[in-house]
Amino acid sequence: MVWKHIKTLLREGYGIEAVPSRGYRLTSIPDILRHSDIVQGLGTTIVGIDIRLFSEVASTNTLAMEMAAQGAPDGAVVIAETQTGGKGRLGRTWISPAGNLYMSVILRPEVPASTAPLITLMGAVAVTHAIRRLCGLKAEIKWPNDILISGRKVCGLLTEMSAEQDRIRHIVLGIGVDVNMDLGALPGEVQACATTLAAASGTRIKRTELLRTILRELDQWYQVFTGGTADILKEWERLNMTVGNRVTVRGSVETLEGQATGIDDLGRLLILTDNGILHAVSAGDVSVQKK
Amino acid sequence: MVWKHIKTLLREGYGIEAVPSRGYRLTSIPDILRHSDIVQGLGTTIVGIDIRLFSEVASTNTLAMEMAAQGAPDGAVVIAETQTGGKGRLGRTWISPAGNLYMSVILRPEVPASTAPLITLMGAVAVTHAIRRLCGLKAEIKWPNDILISGRKVCGLLTEMSAEQDRIRHIVLGIGVDVNMDLGALPGEVQACATTLAAASGTRIKRTELLRTILRELDQWYQVFTGGTADILKEWERLNMTVGNRVTVRGSVETLEGQATGIDDLGRLLILTDNGILHAVSAGDVSVQKK
Repeated sequence: MVWKHIKTLLREGYGIEAVPSRGYRLTSIPDILRHSDIVQGLGTTIVGIDIRLFSEVASTNTLAMEMAAQGAPDGAVVIAETQTGGKGRLGRTWISPAGNLYMSVILRPEVPASTAPLITLMGAVAVTHAIRRLCGLKAEIKWPNDILISGRKVCGLLTEMSAEQDRIRHIVLGIGVDVNMDLGALPGEVQACATTLAAASGTRIKRTELLRTILRELDQWYQVFTGGTADILKEWERLNMTVGNRVTVRGSVETLEGQATGIDDLGRLLILTDNGILHAVSAGDVSVQKK
Repeated sequence: MVWKHIKTLLREGYGIEAVPSRGYRLTSIPDILRHSDIVQGLGTTIVGIDIRLFSEVASTNTLAMEMAAQGAPDGAVVIAETQTGGKGRLGRTWISPAGNLYMSVILRPEVPASTAPLITLMGAVAVTHAIRRLCGLKAEIKWPNDILISGRKVCGLLTEMSAEQDRIRHIVLGIGVDVNMDLGALPGEVQACATTLAAASGTRIKRTELLRTILRELDQWYQVFTGGTADILKEWERLNMTVGNRVTVRGSVETLEGQATGIDDLGRLLILTDNGILHAVSAGDVSVQKK
């Protein structure tokens, strides 16, 4: 009877040692996300009330968008161990080997579509707090929603939505955090500007604890967002490393270079170019020249 | 042989009279939208390059969103004679009997999601021009996208989109114009603030000509939009009857009353309330107290 359970645990990656005439000793716990470990005592009220865990999906965002179209509730979460078609911003690929965190949160806030960028900023604030709290690392936000440690990207967010002008039908906040993977899994040109939480902290990170911390922070900041966007903007500004520096923004049409002076009430980056014109930018790739 | 074709035409609603020992005389043409009539010499370059015509659908917007998700091209148009589940803003119903125009245009502009409201304003500008040109009526825009004649609503627009923050994947511009229907088809409380092009002009409107004029105006203004949004905003301001008047805006959370002083670069209505605070409003129902 005992041996049957032992076999199951061994199959799941647990390290178990037979101790002669004593029984069995647990020597290591595998790094697997388990539903029961995630939800036990989680204590969130919206984010994480429905959690779907997959070993592999094409894209957690694509799956979450489909689930949302079929009525998945506000706060439902899709998590996968790996993605075969992970998505980045602007149609790019998000490389998604095992050992990291790939999750998408379905939200249904009752706000107009113009407010969507603030939900992305909210997500960046929540994940930055989670990383700081759990890993003790000084994570910072690069506009609009990359999270960096010492200038190297450790997390990206991709927001997708189905909306009318007057209301968001559903919005999916995709979060990819590079946690324990070997940095060698990334192409050379990406490696130079990327890091993982393990590499930055010098220790393997417990992914379940990171996930739980992110869910709790998201739950809390989503409620702040629902109460009003001003506190989100203020907290984003406090955690960001873009405003106050000289930046280059490559948009689809033009490239702007100037001083990043702040963000406006819709989350647009304000850039003062050298000819004295203040631009409000909605989208683009930012390079920051730190002082 | 001739009789076979005559029978087809009679079935389609053409009025045909047999003239003894002479042949047949065409006495009336039915008010049916026909693909060949719509496209012949249309001359547009984007809007209307693919036109799908239906006698009845649940909602042209819903169908267009599905077609867009499956790859329908920039400028594709869905048109229906009637809708069984016509959609208005904020989950409301758009009453859709025969005799009017129900159309949805699929657009794929390469712009961030924050620009979506300007596409709605662009649609209102184009349809207002079409009505003015074809019917000689002084159509005006009430923020954001109702079209009125002498203060009565004759057209509504409903924009839906699938988007990431940095780019619109596709956007559907739904246009409902009350053309020739009996105003008695509307519920009593709506009748009082609605009109049709036929009622306002005192003559039945040729729907095919109206549709062709709308497609041409949309094609032209969509190209203006692609070149830059400033001209759209300027033209919208010229055609609107909201700015400069005292307004009440009922939003989902609060109601604002004040002077409408303009729109900002994202199409938000600027309202100066009596306590001297300037508000930028993204969504809401506007009542205008005309001077």
